[in-house]
Amino acid sequence: MAVDVDVLERNLAGMAASAADRGLTLRPHAKTHKTLEIARRQIRHGAAGLTVATVREAEIFADGGVGDLFIAYPIWPSPERARRLRELAGRVALRVGIDSLESAEALARAVGPLDVLVEVDSGHHRSGVRPADAEALTAAAEKLGHRVRGIFTFPGHSYGPGLRDQAALDEARALVDADPHAEVRSGGSTPTAELADLGPLNEIRPGVYVFNDAQQVELGIRDFGDVALTVAATVVSRTGNRVIADAGSKVLGADRLAFATGFGRLPDVPGARIVALSEHHATIEFPDEPPARGDVVRIAPNHVCTTVNLVDELVVVSGGAQVDSWRVAARGANS
Amino acid sequence: MAVDVDVLERNLAGMAASAADRGLTLRPHAKTHKTLEIARRQIRHGAAGLTVATVREAEIFADGGVGDLFIAYPIWPSPERARRLRELAGRVALRVGIDSLESAEALARAVGPLDVLVEVDSGHHRSGVRPADAEALTAAAEKLGHRVRGIFTFPGHSYGPGLRDQAALDEARALVDADPHAEVRSGGSTPTAELADLGPLNEIRPGVYVFNDAQQVELGIRDFGDVALTVAATVVSRTGNRVIADAGSKVLGADRLAFATGFGRLPDVPGARIVALSEHHATIEFPDEPPARGDVVRIAPNHVCTTVNLVDELVVVSGGAQVDSWRVAARGANS
Repeated sequence: MAVDVDVLERNLAGMAASAADRGLTLRPHAKTHKTLEIARRQIRHGAAGLTVATVREAEIFADGGVGDLFIAYPIWPSPERARRLRELAGRVALRVGIDSLESAEALARAVGPLDVLVEVDSGHHRSGVRPADAEALTAAAEKLGHRVRGIFTFPGHSYGPGLRDQAALDEARALVDADPHAEVRSGGSTPTAELADLGPLNEIRPGVYVFNDAQQVELGIRDFGDVALTVAATVVSRTGNRVIADAGSKVLGADRLAFATGFGRLPDVPGARIVALSEHHATIEFPDEPPARGDVVRIAPNHVCTTVNLVDELVVVSGGAQVDSWRVAARGANS
Repeated sequence: MAVDVDVLERNLAGMAASAADRGLTLRPHAKTHKTLEIARRQIRHGAAGLTVATVREAEIFADGGVGDLFIAYPIWPSPERARRLRELAGRVALRVGIDSLESAEALARAVGPLDVLVEVDSGHHRSGVRPADAEALTAAAEKLGHRVRGIFTFPGHSYGPGLRDQAALDEARALVDADPHAEVRSGGSTPTAELADLGPLNEIRPGVYVFNDAQQVELGIRDFGDVALTVAATVVSRTGNRVIADAGSKVLGADRLAFATGFGRLPDVPGARIVALSEHHATIEFPDEPPARGDVVRIAPNHVCTTVNLVDELVVVSGGAQVDSWRVAARGANS
């Protein structure tokens, strides 16, 4: 799995400049890369801190020197997790998500007062309270001793063709309806993060933009030239215009949203389609003469966040040559 | 991720007895478990050796003391892989798959004469030669110095409702058409491996049977009581009869075949459905009163082979209590 560091740097600089131009705080989601070297580059480019999904991810980035972390997830503090949250809150600026009175109470009881952000559902219908309920939860959490720093949402329903603008509108409306005066009003998936007008948002948390992937290309958000991470696969079998390459779901991931044209894309052959994927076989149809057995093809995965989670190391390349390797320090950090 | 060792042992013993009763060689596919402790149990139960998917898996099981390994994959011997294959062939009984004259030649040139099996396509249409072409490839491979030990196929098209019997017939016919007198006639996915009459097969290579998973249950091949591996998830959010549990595609895997009713199943609540899955969220709809925040639910993944590949360690339980932990030694061994 190779990362083109020049493309990566361009992606990091582009998002940082875009956020700065609009006066937005950038708090990138590190679940995408799980890598300390990339986290440090994000901070150097001006990120205020990182967003993470789990306590373990927070611990690993804290160990790596990141001092400002937001766990954008309505964590339930089991006794073991409560102990770890307490320890974390003692050594970094920590924020955690809540989306219910029960979780606010459980955190207060098991961990103590925390800096929290109230999660608001802006239309993705996963976790988060309805915007109209945010004020009551904020008041209740403050009564429990938490410091409510603001509100956040994830417009995950931006992941569909032509849905981006509506998702961004939903995102803005949800935050306005929840609390237009909150100190932190945080949103921004990679598809919505760079829209010119994000309304009431003052913080964005894009993740995928560091690498980009086939989904972003097929949504029209990015070009193949923006894809920094690819998996090299060797052609092992061939029949007509169809080949089998030795990269499957165990290295690419099996994610495939309804709009995807296949199980990943070949940046160097935009007309090729990965029509089937098993654990170690990608079945690729070529528009013309396919590559020969033994040839190597580069594959951009559909969803790079799950791809990176499959390997221990990223091969760092520049101008086609390896210049470094980075450990995926938070691979598998699910708890 | 927990493995009930009592269910595991029953699964291992059942498949071993079933193979023995029919006079079949059992060469289980270790890509499912990637774990030395389970490999050793399979050998103790009478497996002749193991099947693996990659050179790296073969190296890891060879290091772990398994002396008979079949790489059931049409590997292309890049220089670095050729060196590793030579080293492996020098220390274990090694067989590799071929499905073309080009790969037979490349192996002869780069590695030297090997024990090979010719892969035959029995209807899955992935790799493998047409049955009618197996004889010519066998002759050509022998001329190159390889010892052709037989033929193999994978009836992957058995993974659909009601397709098992037809897939098993296709599998048998393909091997008969290819070479009914081959020394090794190897097939057998978990769905087809225990059919009473496997025709010309004298070896089976099931993988999933050690753990089983939601796919096997939904195909009617297994019951929830046969599922040995589950992922424990905590309920973190709840609206009506719908909850969010903190296990997503980064621990369950994103596999979802067309017939699947969701992204995994809850063995303890057969009526529940996992209607959406993101990286750290499983959205679960319950038929009745859902569990409360903080409650723990057990999830059987759709496709256990990709699930195991996401963790470094399996928690081994018996009677609900942890009794051991096993390292997933070949996790990520894709090359």
